[in-house]
Amino acid sequence: MAKSEIGLIGLGTMGAMLALNIAEKGFAISVFNRTTAKTSEFFAEAGELAPKITPTMSLEDFVESIEQPRNIILMVPAGAPVDEQIAALRPLLGPDDLIIDAGNANFRDTQSRAEQAEADGVPYLGIGVSGGEEGARHGPSIMGGGRQEAWDRVAHILTAISAKYEDTACATWMGEGGAGHFVKAVHNGIEYADMQMIAEIYGIMRDGQGASASDCAEIFQTWNKGTLQSYLIEISGEVAKATDPATGQPVLDIILDRAGQKGTGRWTVIEAQHLGAPVPVIEAAVAARNLSAMKAERVRGETTFGAAPSALGKHTLSADELEQALIAGKIMCYAQGFHLLNNASVEFGWDLPMPEIARVWREGCIIRSSMLNDMAEALTAAPKDNLMFAPFFAKLIEENAGGLRKVVSTALAHGLQVPALAAGLSYFDAMRTGRSTANMIQAQRDFFGAHSFERVDQDGAHHGPWGSGA
Amino acid sequence: MAKSEIGLIGLGTMGAMLALNIAEKGFAISVFNRTTAKTSEFFAEAGELAPKITPTMSLEDFVESIEQPRNIILMVPAGAPVDEQIAALRPLLGPDDLIIDAGNANFRDTQSRAEQAEADGVPYLGIGVSGGEEGARHGPSIMGGGRQEAWDRVAHILTAISAKYEDTACATWMGEGGAGHFVKAVHNGIEYADMQMIAEIYGIMRDGQGASASDCAEIFQTWNKGTLQSYLIEISGEVAKATDPATGQPVLDIILDRAGQKGTGRWTVIEAQHLGAPVPVIEAAVAARNLSAMKAERVRGETTFGAAPSALGKHTLSADELEQALIAGKIMCYAQGFHLLNNASVEFGWDLPMPEIARVWREGCIIRSSMLNDMAEALTAAPKDNLMFAPFFAKLIEENAGGLRKVVSTALAHGLQVPALAAGLSYFDAMRTGRSTANMIQAQRDFFGAHSFERVDQDGAHHGPWGSGA
Repeated sequence: MAKSEIGLIGLGTMGAMLALNIAEKGFAISVFNRTTAKTSEFFAEAGELAPKITPTMSLEDFVESIEQPRNIILMVPAGAPVDEQIAALRPLLGPDDLIIDAGNANFRDTQSRAEQAEADGVPYLGIGVSGGEEGARHGPSIMGGGRQEAWDRVAHILTAISAKYEDTACATWMGEGGAGHFVKAVHNGIEYADMQMIAEIYGIMRDGQGASASDCAEIFQTWNKGTLQSYLIEISGEVAKATDPATGQPVLDIILDRAGQKGTGRWTVIEAQHLGAPVPVIEAAVAARNLSAMKAERVRGETTFGAAPSALGKHTLSADELEQALIAGKIMCYAQGFHLLNNASVEFGWDLPMPEIARVWREGCIIRSSMLNDMAEALTAAPKDNLMFAPFFAKLIEENAGGLRKVVSTALAHGLQVPALAAGLSYFDAMRTGRSTANMIQAQRDFFGAHSFERVDQDGAHHGPWGSGA
Repeated sequence: MAKSEIGLIGLGTMGAMLALNIAEKGFAISVFNRTTAKTSEFFAEAGELAPKITPTMSLEDFVESIEQPRNIILMVPAGAPVDEQIAALRPLLGPDDLIIDAGNANFRDTQSRAEQAEADGVPYLGIGVSGGEEGARHGPSIMGGGRQEAWDRVAHILTAISAKYEDTACATWMGEGGAGHFVKAVHNGIEYADMQMIAEIYGIMRDGQGASASDCAEIFQTWNKGTLQSYLIEISGEVAKATDPATGQPVLDIILDRAGQKGTGRWTVIEAQHLGAPVPVIEAAVAARNLSAMKAERVRGETTFGAAPSALGKHTLSADELEQALIAGKIMCYAQGFHLLNNASVEFGWDLPMPEIARVWREGCIIRSSMLNDMAEALTAAPKDNLMFAPFFAKLIEENAGGLRKVVSTALAHGLQVPALAAGLSYFDAMRTGRSTANMIQAQRDFFGAHSFERVDQDGAHHGPWGSGA
């Protein structure tokens, strides 16, 4: 019996979809799942792809069924299960056999595992895969990390199964060690922010303007033809127009306002803190998810203080202004994300390919959008510059910042929550304030802690004439 | 020669001040510093306190000079130096000798060191000390962590050297392991936020209203007699009224707007992320420090887009409204801080004494303020409730939230940066919105990732009727 070209362990939703995708692209694949019933079920439902798939019921049979040197994808839950799987698998493998963690690993875990593999003299890759179930099945965005020669060995498969933007595969090697999973984490942080900003605009329409879900759907559908064209705007239109079969109500209206998270937005924010990169839009989005979970306290707050949102009344905001706010907010969010990537690239010695990151996000992943193509071009010209200074985006900001400012100040005046958009506006203003108020902070720090300050008119560290009372 | 009651290693600014404080309170103290010249210098300058101080030039002599069981305070830089110092010291000590890390340790390091000490059967304390140089010398706020019996052994010394609020010492045992350093970290996060909100209000006065530094000083001095009475408001008045001897200019005006940080605000934000506690006001303050460091980019942004701040003109904000904004913003910040402490208390099994935390912060530390006394009372009545629901603070919020709203929306409309105050307002509104827009987030998540959602009208996990296109 011919051996498989690749193997995959872990037939959860994402793993199963990825395996089918690989089989469909013509690669013979062996699969294994700890609960073997799942393997049988998967194989039984594989239909016309079954001939390409070798289901195996033991790790030994799985390994035996793959041609050497082996390439094995892990799609098991992030964390300890990955380490356990590697520990179980390695003794069965040869020194040239490659393990590829395609799950949602924290990039720091991938860094350590890559170092361990390096020490053991065995190849290892950590790849970020984005696009949800649908992406995994029909073409995800793939961000690779590890030794480039290991990537090159499987690039033909990863490229084949990835999404395509026009003719370009959305699968790229980002750098050594955890680079791929880091890029994926930033993707997810941006995803949180994109979603939150859309939800904020939806809230203005719903609570400030009395728009129905289907009114909102129409607006999103219109925006999806313009600058904001993106998967998330598209699906916001889709979900806003859907009707609940049980009640006949708009689905949006029957969904509880308590958002879940798998923690990847949180990681982005934590790493941004370690790297000293300000990502306030993403932070606001993560905070909004945490606040959404505090439903009982929010209801209590509404009882205690009255409901926050109020109708805009005569303080109207046009659909164009709302669109401008989203455009400008989105640029600020991505400017922060790429700044974070730049800081990480320096800190970890990755030399991340900035334009390639934008390119790989153009299709397949959740944040795919037409704007990412413009970002790829801007980052080709100036990969280390803040995105807001790229001529294309500077112009877009000039056209749209007024809308962002009006929307944020009006919304806040009316108790409509726009924390992420407000953070975007604050970031924009901070980034064009040559003389900030940090002189006050420095004065305070020198007063109470003798931390010293710099002067505007001389070099060096100075102290204030605070006297002995300080 | 009589032996010392306590020893202290590390005669940097804070260590030297703490040693003098201990000597002044009548305790015989041995001191040691790796660079022995510093020890000689310290002793030479000790003046009338010299008889209480035993300078030592080797670790062996230092240990030998302290009575058993020994109590030894470490005041060395956080991180590896602490571990190195412990490693050098332990072999010279008996099993009952207590090491007390009074530096700025990350509480996670203190947790590990406490666990190690536990495993080794030796006592260990990690205590947070706040109040800067002045506090260390004349009475800091002390937050202890570790075994309670170890705390009890040195409580008489720590209580004696601590600040006093009326007759109550600002020195308290917070809980096991890293509890003390955790409380100190949250203190520092709040400190960042308090300072940032003051800087934001200063910016409105300076850039929005054309106020001079001395105009600002007068306002801060007035506020310091009211609800905002606090050390940070007081010193804001002090620094705003100070004149630079070299130029005759207000000192504030010659200080460069690039703020430093030692990373403790960052730790607070990182731990809040791990604990799922929203602390957006603190996050905004940390981001503002990071942004302040990006001076060259801000100047470039001002050239590209024009300066952000503009005069308020007819959109006036009164001093009362600015004061209201600070009051309301401050309450939101502390509500977030205590929420974070509550989450940590549960997560780490500390049973943190919430009212005691507010009490210990009333004097000695940088965030000391009269409002903390009200917080101590509110937290005595309901230690686990969000502070905004305490009747005293609910009333204060009702009186001041309007000012916060007006200040934030007006400032944002004029390019004046108020990210921390805006985050406070957004938090307040989020906490009184029973029906948020997280239903949109959940709809999107279910659409692209089949994450499921809850319904408003039924229990359980549900999926939308998105069709196969999802």
